[in-house]
Amino acid sequence: MPYPEEAEGYQVDSPETYTEFHKRFFKLKPFGDYDVDIKIEACGVCGSDHHTISGGWGEQKFPLCVGHEIIGKAIRVGPKVTLVKEGQRVGVGAQSYSCGECKQCKNDNETYCPVLMIDTYGAEWPETGIVSQGGYSSHVRTHEHWVFPIPEQLETNLVAPMLCAGLTAYSPLVRNGAGPGKKVGIVGLGGIGHFGIMFAKALGAETWAISRSRAKEADSLKLGADGYIATAEEGWEKPHLCSFDLIINCASSSQGFDLAKYLSMMDVHGRWISVGLPEEEGQVIKAQNLISNGVLIGASHLGSRREMLQMLQLAADKGLKGWVEELQIGEEGLKEAMNRIQKGDVRYRFTMTGYDKVFG
Amino acid sequence: MPYPEEAEGYQVDSPETYTEFHKRFFKLKPFGDYDVDIKIEACGVCGSDHHTISGGWGEQKFPLCVGHEIIGKAIRVGPKVTLVKEGQRVGVGAQSYSCGECKQCKNDNETYCPVLMIDTYGAEWPETGIVSQGGYSSHVRTHEHWVFPIPEQLETNLVAPMLCAGLTAYSPLVRNGAGPGKKVGIVGLGGIGHFGIMFAKALGAETWAISRSRAKEADSLKLGADGYIATAEEGWEKPHLCSFDLIINCASSSQGFDLAKYLSMMDVHGRWISVGLPEEEGQVIKAQNLISNGVLIGASHLGSRREMLQMLQLAADKGLKGWVEELQIGEEGLKEAMNRIQKGDVRYRFTMTGYDKVFG
Repeated sequence: MPYPEEAEGYQVDSPETYTEFHKRFFKLKPFGDYDVDIKIEACGVCGSDHHTISGGWGEQKFPLCVGHEIIGKAIRVGPKVTLVKEGQRVGVGAQSYSCGECKQCKNDNETYCPVLMIDTYGAEWPETGIVSQGGYSSHVRTHEHWVFPIPEQLETNLVAPMLCAGLTAYSPLVRNGAGPGKKVGIVGLGGIGHFGIMFAKALGAETWAISRSRAKEADSLKLGADGYIATAEEGWEKPHLCSFDLIINCASSSQGFDLAKYLSMMDVHGRWISVGLPEEEGQVIKAQNLISNGVLIGASHLGSRREMLQMLQLAADKGLKGWVEELQIGEEGLKEAMNRIQKGDVRYRFTMTGYDKVFG
Repeated sequence: MPYPEEAEGYQVDSPETYTEFHKRFFKLKPFGDYDVDIKIEACGVCGSDHHTISGGWGEQKFPLCVGHEIIGKAIRVGPKVTLVKEGQRVGVGAQSYSCGECKQCKNDNETYCPVLMIDTYGAEWPETGIVSQGGYSSHVRTHEHWVFPIPEQLETNLVAPMLCAGLTAYSPLVRNGAGPGKKVGIVGLGGIGHFGIMFAKALGAETWAISRSRAKEADSLKLGADGYIATAEEGWEKPHLCSFDLIINCASSSQGFDLAKYLSMMDVHGRWISVGLPEEEGQVIKAQNLISNGVLIGASHLGSRREMLQMLQLAADKGLKGWVEELQIGEEGLKEAMNRIQKGDVRYRFTMTGYDKVFG
């Protein structure tokens, strides 16, 4: 079987036509000694995909094939690869390369590398002019550090969304001490938030789901939440004043957000960590808002390889799985995914499947 | 010698007349079993005093005698007092009471007590109608937890400003890990900032002073800074990208502040802690500003009794002292202090002295 020099995938041409996907061939980056070629079997649909192609995050490199919650089979490994075996089932997430040499890369902070950051799609490989293309496609070619063996207990279509949404929730939980004796809140019950509840609980924290209405209460409890807060209800924050050690804010919009009320629920030096990147203007923050409990506000970006492997093992050990609706990859399925993400009509993640039907 | 039931001090009547101080008698709170009466010998002049009486922080309880960097002699101790001896030289800072019973009070976070917070001036003692009055006066009456024995090596007039400004700088330094191997920045070289440099260096951190112009460079190096950054200079942040573990923001104004440039200097998960409370509207913060290095933004409020005692001992051990200009307490001296603080014309703290001349 010949190795691919090209991949075939579904590209979008502009923000104005972002629900129109076109099946095309495009060039892969030159194969390196540490690279792994992956034949894709499934790919989760991330809010980032929508933000990117719809223009919400600003200018992008079109035409572009998005998708960065990839599961597939390693069909070729470079001569220096030691972390992945040919034939192994593997995943790729939202980032596909960093410098590998700097303080951050050597300190489990490779997703914060200030030197070189190649996202799985939309980033230009240095000295090639080739723009990385994502997982709504037949193949990706990825450096082994960014390729993650998938424990056999995990089902392909259900684990796919963990490769971005899952890790995005997991990393700030473990970096900020979620565990027994801690009270943790998860704001925003979408793709990331539903993993947040699942993982916070699995890590042993007292876990609260925080959402606008009560519409997602039953789901939250099924996901493992110990309690539920509906912020549309008067006085919602009062019973929780000064009590949360950590809140992960997964909301994809900051509109109508009364941040001061959320922060009043934080224990002294508690942490409010945002993982969503709303398209709107930010929040006005005064030192006065932070000083009554010395709360810390931060943000978190993906997670390290080490955390990815830990998360996958935790999911395997505890039988955790994404709540997934499967859609057939193709022009129609991708259009439906984008239209429904736009409306927030997904509980809680789409996985594009049936790759063999369109890519053989 | 009879114990005082009243104190005599300098009060202001309104924000419109905040540089006019009037010498008057006012009632002390009822003497409690844990209270200490202190005959005041010196009091530092804090930016808070100016913010409070000039109306910058909103409505206050006038007439009001401010001042909360108090040094004096304990002339009477309640029957249950164990932490202070009669005749001892002691200090009182910006806070004078908290509930003492809650999780925060029992966990060295009494300055974040959500139950009861009595500031040294301007707070009403429950069930008495008596508003606490500060240290531009002959005496204060304070619960022993908030009365701090002063090590004998420290000079009264030079240690006074440590009781608020010093602790405000010291607490976030130790709570956020300032020490050997850490790179720490101090923004804003006023009363708090000059202590910030001194203490960061004394704690063993690589210490950088950060100010607008180079005007305070020589002073900063004398105070112990290892380096100096002038933010009026093009490209000032570039040599420091992703390198600071901690920056304490002591600036008293946020006008013209390009927060994103400051944050770009932070190492991954570095901390930007504000201790000033500017009168202006706050900063607009987007998750996007925080995500490239996962920086945490916070604020800090004073410090615990335990930290106060540690700080005073550190100052005694290392021979640290505030850079102080002394002014004679009285209508004239206080007016001069307020006018010059308004203009930022102080390096780096005033201490009101000569109490015996006006209060006998």
